[in-house]
Amino acid sequence: MMRRRCFPTKQICRSTREFTQRAFRNSRYIPLIPHGIHPFSTKSAKSEDLVCEPKEPVLKSKDIPGPKSIALKKKLETIQAAGTVEFFADYGKSFGNYICDVDGNMILDIFTQKSTLPLGYNHPKLLKVFQNEQNLKALINRPALGITPGKDWPDRLSSVLQSVAPKGLSKITSMMCSSCSNENAYKAIFIWYQNKLRGDSCPSEEEKKSAMQNKPPGSANLSILSFKGGSHGNTLGTLSTSHTNYIRKLDYPAFEWPVARFPKYKYPLDKNQAFNKKEDKDRLREVKELVGSSACKCPVAGIIVEPIQCEGGDNEASEEFFKGLQTICKEKEIAFLVDEVQTGGGITGKFWCHEHFNLEGPPDLVTFSKKLQMGGFFHKDEFVAKEPYRIFNTWMGDPSKLLLLEEIIHVIEEEKLLENVNQTGAYFKEGLMSIEKEFKDLLHSTRGRGFFLAITCANAATRDKIVVTLKRVGIQVGISGESSIRFRPALIFKKEHVDVFLDRFRKVLKCL
Amino acid sequence: MMRRRCFPTKQICRSTREFTQRAFRNSRYIPLIPHGIHPFSTKSAKSEDLVCEPKEPVLKSKDIPGPKSIALKKKLETIQAAGTVEFFADYGKSFGNYICDVDGNMILDIFTQKSTLPLGYNHPKLLKVFQNEQNLKALINRPALGITPGKDWPDRLSSVLQSVAPKGLSKITSMMCSSCSNENAYKAIFIWYQNKLRGDSCPSEEEKKSAMQNKPPGSANLSILSFKGGSHGNTLGTLSTSHTNYIRKLDYPAFEWPVARFPKYKYPLDKNQAFNKKEDKDRLREVKELVGSSACKCPVAGIIVEPIQCEGGDNEASEEFFKGLQTICKEKEIAFLVDEVQTGGGITGKFWCHEHFNLEGPPDLVTFSKKLQMGGFFHKDEFVAKEPYRIFNTWMGDPSKLLLLEEIIHVIEEEKLLENVNQTGAYFKEGLMSIEKEFKDLLHSTRGRGFFLAITCANAATRDKIVVTLKRVGIQVGISGESSIRFRPALIFKKEHVDVFLDRFRKVLKCL
Repeated sequence: MMRRRCFPTKQICRSTREFTQRAFRNSRYIPLIPHGIHPFSTKSAKSEDLVCEPKEPVLKSKDIPGPKSIALKKKLETIQAAGTVEFFADYGKSFGNYICDVDGNMILDIFTQKSTLPLGYNHPKLLKVFQNEQNLKALINRPALGITPGKDWPDRLSSVLQSVAPKGLSKITSMMCSSCSNENAYKAIFIWYQNKLRGDSCPSEEEKKSAMQNKPPGSANLSILSFKGGSHGNTLGTLSTSHTNYIRKLDYPAFEWPVARFPKYKYPLDKNQAFNKKEDKDRLREVKELVGSSACKCPVAGIIVEPIQCEGGDNEASEEFFKGLQTICKEKEIAFLVDEVQTGGGITGKFWCHEHFNLEGPPDLVTFSKKLQMGGFFHKDEFVAKEPYRIFNTWMGDPSKLLLLEEIIHVIEEEKLLENVNQTGAYFKEGLMSIEKEFKDLLHSTRGRGFFLAITCANAATRDKIVVTLKRVGIQVGISGESSIRFRPALIFKKEHVDVFLDRFRKVLKCL
Repeated sequence: MMRRRCFPTKQICRSTREFTQRAFRNSRYIPLIPHGIHPFSTKSAKSEDLVCEPKEPVLKSKDIPGPKSIALKKKLETIQAAGTVEFFADYGKSFGNYICDVDGNMILDIFTQKSTLPLGYNHPKLLKVFQNEQNLKALINRPALGITPGKDWPDRLSSVLQSVAPKGLSKITSMMCSSCSNENAYKAIFIWYQNKLRGDSCPSEEEKKSAMQNKPPGSANLSILSFKGGSHGNTLGTLSTSHTNYIRKLDYPAFEWPVARFPKYKYPLDKNQAFNKKEDKDRLREVKELVGSSACKCPVAGIIVEPIQCEGGDNEASEEFFKGLQTICKEKEIAFLVDEVQTGGGITGKFWCHEHFNLEGPPDLVTFSKKLQMGGFFHKDEFVAKEPYRIFNTWMGDPSKLLLLEEIIHVIEEEKLLENVNQTGAYFKEGLMSIEKEFKDLLHSTRGRGFFLAITCANAATRDKIVVTLKRVGIQVGISGESSIRFRPALIFKKEHVDVFLDRFRKVLKCL
């Protein structure tokens, strides 16, 4: 049986003793199997391996990171940059919604590896995927998918990815990560745009020659319009469309592509309708001006937008805004690319967040990654390049990730996890709104859809203090924008997890 | 027992009957275990699964691609661009150096998934990696490595990647693919370069603000110098340093970065020393001029170069050329980045190709991917960014690929595969040179190191015909440059495989 030790409330609470007593009234480690959480046992598992979730966080070190994490971080720093590392995890002992760190703390994870683990840790169904010999062979004989894909590749693309494709987007280009997905979606847009101008003509010799020298007209003087607060990747092309923090962009060359402002709403939405409506209108006008502007050094071939800006501060926009964007794209004959890297995979209560917007038709392209384990983009037929080798690289994805995704989608369906996201998400959001009312000086603007939730703190310092303190009481959350907290639980997060969180959140806030 | 059927020699041979007879004199399928090739059996394997290599290619369909591959390609085309797909493979039945296609053909693979499979297909040691429960958990609980790496991450980076690190390069930044590796290596160079200029000062407010708007000075007006014929990735940044074929670049915006010419040697090297020496000298002078040129729109912060240009035509350069490049970088205080994505992992007979060049010290950065299963770069201490989140993304690599690499490195050591590459590679090259002499009108310029070999054909049409015909007789090779064939066997390729290839190569050439 694990033993709980005290934790460092000194720095965070006026009355240490009182807070400790309150926070840990029910904190015994109870290896109970909560409703809806799968037990897991295996013959070869070591005896101390967890086979279920604890009832609530279990703290074993005086602080998080604990001494073992700190020692490992020192070691890692001799090998690579480790300034962003928060703690080291023991993935053998993590389970469900709880991540176990190397010091034995069981932490309720509401950030889930930057929102990439839809089923939490060690889901028994996922552990079985590569116990199948054929799948194991797919894993170790990784093909160059563009040249010699495996015999099941077309069927799996169809049964897995097409089964969740946004309606109307029949084509798939597979990739590995979000950066490569967006970079190649941009390339597909540029080809499509230039082909429209070219009509039936072939590329000229001048175009071919100048492209090889990085010069126009072959290297086309085109742009992708993006939004302030948008985040689309960490390569030079995608960074030219990302605008969240200077530290991600400073010192690198960038394409001087146009940047529009994203709506900044006032909350609660129902009490600020006029303001927010005007915000939509103003921002759409700005986009329209930028697309058609002669001041713009390079014609806009497409617009990229997140359905909810994530890294940039969990900024929502209305159905009307997205409809307006799509209309502008149609009018100006440019591509409408929706980046669902962060919002895809069910976390907003629908498989794709843009499905909430009742658009007239699908976006032209939708990029994905994270929860889908692999990257890529869905797109309309007209964005398939005619010539081979235009959108191409060595691996073009990773079939082993598609196998994991296959099982993830099965589990989402079997366990009705989208329903869970909607129901538990509503309960979570209500709880946050209630706490927001209790702590008006500290919190505002509870927002989001499903499990894609956020709340803004009075300022960055308060936010950072809350996040650090939450970790000390065994809760892992993320940050976004200047002063917001982002919540990204796994799709298996239940009401009891919400309760554990809200209880500790309230106690942390009381002690600030 | 598989049955051999005839293959379509009609289009490729003046005397069909004679050629067929010659080519298949010894072509019975013999499930023999050649020296050095591992048998593989598993209880759950289906009875028809191969447990060894055939003695030579086995042809079952009239053509490659056969009817099943053609049907699958039609299906794939309804889902994604499939113009580059050559055939569909049955990875369950592929083994060692032989890839089995969906029509049952066993093809001797001398291209190995664009040179990404160092141990060929279904190596028994690799099949065991994820039968270990801890490794399986590392696979399905994929972390955001920059935030919460697993407890074994520092040790594994050390015992696996550092164990093969180029001497003098102690730091590792992990990534997933070659494009992201090179993109982020460029970023590391730009940060390093700007920090040198900045000295002890912090970035100015103007820099921070302008970076967010994609404008200088924050978006620094810097460049990476690359070479004509170089190939470094398929994202917009790496494409600005890639110059192999217009089809990869046309229509995309590019950074107008400088491009130098790479040496073009005459072969055989020992009979063209004066010409080749002058070529080195001229090319180095050109690089020096470009780096210091006022005509260059943006200062050069670093040079990227492949130790052997791969995609661009398997173009070698001498020890002196690379030493000269390094000297220029030192003199001009710019970074020297060697892209070992294609040449790394032992294929040239040393783990890294640049180790052949006897450089005074290591390059500043060395990027890798492909044979190493994961991407990333080794670099000097000074290329570690001081601030967190500068070189960062969601996954920062994939620990499951490091587990595969760990076993690959064990096997390379245990089976002395670098020795095999050197010995068998020399035998292979001698064989190619001998054939080159026999077919002077068709072939010239046999070149390369270890298993990284190439030969140039009289023209592109001849090359393409040879490659297609080789496939029809059960040999898979790659192409590079305008008219070259590239050979990229797995490290387990043996003399008997060379013999099988040379025999068929000779027969194909005789019939042209």
